[in-house]
Amino acid sequence: MTSQIRSRPGPLYGALEAGGTKWVCAVGTGPDDIRATARFATTTPDATIAQAIAFFRPHQDALTALGIGSFGPLDPAPGSPTFGWITDTPKPGWAQTDLAGAMRRALGVPVAFDTDVNAAALGEYQWGAAQHLDSLIYLTVGTGLGGGAIVHGRLIHGLLHPEMGHIRVPHDWAADPFPGTCPFHGDCLEGLASGPALEARWGQRGETLPADHPAWPLEAQYLAHGVVSMICILSPQRLILGGGVMLQTHLFPRVRTLVHQLLNRYIRAAALLDRIDTYIVPPALGERSGVLGAMALARALGSNATNT
Amino acid sequence: MTSQIRSRPGPLYGALEAGGTKWVCAVGTGPDDIRATARFATTTPDATIAQAIAFFRPHQDALTALGIGSFGPLDPAPGSPTFGWITDTPKPGWAQTDLAGAMRRALGVPVAFDTDVNAAALGEYQWGAAQHLDSLIYLTVGTGLGGGAIVHGRLIHGLLHPEMGHIRVPHDWAADPFPGTCPFHGDCLEGLASGPALEARWGQRGETLPADHPAWPLEAQYLAHGVVSMICILSPQRLILGGGVMLQTHLFPRVRTLVHQLLNRYIRAAALLDRIDTYIVPPALGERSGVLGAMALARALGSNATNT
Repeated sequence: MTSQIRSRPGPLYGALEAGGTKWVCAVGTGPDDIRATARFATTTPDATIAQAIAFFRPHQDALTALGIGSFGPLDPAPGSPTFGWITDTPKPGWAQTDLAGAMRRALGVPVAFDTDVNAAALGEYQWGAAQHLDSLIYLTVGTGLGGGAIVHGRLIHGLLHPEMGHIRVPHDWAADPFPGTCPFHGDCLEGLASGPALEARWGQRGETLPADHPAWPLEAQYLAHGVVSMICILSPQRLILGGGVMLQTHLFPRVRTLVHQLLNRYIRAAALLDRIDTYIVPPALGERSGVLGAMALARALGSNATNT
Repeated sequence: MTSQIRSRPGPLYGALEAGGTKWVCAVGTGPDDIRATARFATTTPDATIAQAIAFFRPHQDALTALGIGSFGPLDPAPGSPTFGWITDTPKPGWAQTDLAGAMRRALGVPVAFDTDVNAAALGEYQWGAAQHLDSLIYLTVGTGLGGGAIVHGRLIHGLLHPEMGHIRVPHDWAADPFPGTCPFHGDCLEGLASGPALEARWGQRGETLPADHPAWPLEAQYLAHGVVSMICILSPQRLILGGGVMLQTHLFPRVRTLVHQLLNRYIRAAALLDRIDTYIVPPALGERSGVLGAMALARALGSNATNT
């Protein structure tokens, strides 16, 4: 008579991509081992958080940690009194929401918390288009426009976290009298080039505009100016452009060509001069960069907790 | 009869700030222990390098390492075939100059090599206005306009090195028809706001323009746009503005006020909202940031060599 040995499952991680439009949840260990997923619209904080908790509840005892990549602005600094909060977001009803705290209290697991774009940057660094590099920027162009970054193999926070969509770029008011949609800055990059900016300028959603519409050269021009600023300031080893607007894949060759022209061969790096097709790229994880990045956040927290 | 014990001197380091206008050399161990210095105009590569070698020659046997912070663009990647070269600089006669190699061969010491602004960033991080921080940007506004950065306590290289002066910023051609001085980009930030741009726009050198001259609000506006891009993209914990143009100290309150207005309280970090006077600051090491940063480069190389 032998005692039955149950194989002990390895650690499982929870992942939550908390976007301004939809939330994506997953349980698993990595891109090739997702045990469960869910996706639902972002409504009120109470209802949306309750829906996420309900998804993770059955897995609660198996989870080593939960990672959250959220829309913001937010407080990603462990130890801060408002760590884990979505802070001053213009999104109605969501300002000062203690998202990480609510999830931690409900599920009883350690929670890692960062911006959605930092999570996506980490996902692409760990499993996607920027493995084994020292640095990268992940830029999303969608409902919002924002960037996350890794430098020296670690996510950037610095002052708080990057807010790459809110840089100013040249805006030729004669050619494009559209004033921009950003409630804080008007014609910052997000105000000129996000999905809502496209829709407000042209009176129809971007995905309904044909590839030969004048919207696209203009969109590419703003994105190229933004990308040039990112290259000149942060000098990333790869630049990943994701988000709904970048599903218009004809934007990639347009942006690459304009970045090349704007830099005018000044920065003599082979990645820019000879290999820009592999420098400015779509996310290798596709739409899963964010949720897999949240899983990578959870894994990093879990291994830290194990080590200490 | 006792044997005479000579006190063994500690390691000494050589430092070379190789600027486009002048070179500054030093031998010592740090800001409070400089044994010798020299300063001379940048002429031809052969003559200028010979002058630097002549300065270091008497100290050659005592030097553990030499650090060089140079104008660029340059190749700072150890292991690259052109490591230590000033590469495609528009400065006449200096393109493809193997500066680090020439110094190493002449003096027989290990040589650390980086941009002048990365060196200055390191100097301020080690001994100046940004000690104990995770990240900073050092921006020089002078003959050139460029920035160096530290993230996670280490200098940024990434693709090659940052070229922060070559970002585009909003340029109101009606208000300022000046086309910019950059031979590569025309009206990039360097083209609009460097010392030569000031002089070309107004027909006299910046230091001769009174504080109430319209040059200065315009200068502050371009610098503020640049600084906002740096804050949004890299999120540094401090921003140090040095170089000859910033000796016009009235620029500091102007730039701080405009940065505050442009960000419009969107990034809710106390450093920006409540303490911008201590966030955007002049270099604590004054004009010595670069040469002391070069010494810090040498010290880092020396301790690596000792450790391995």
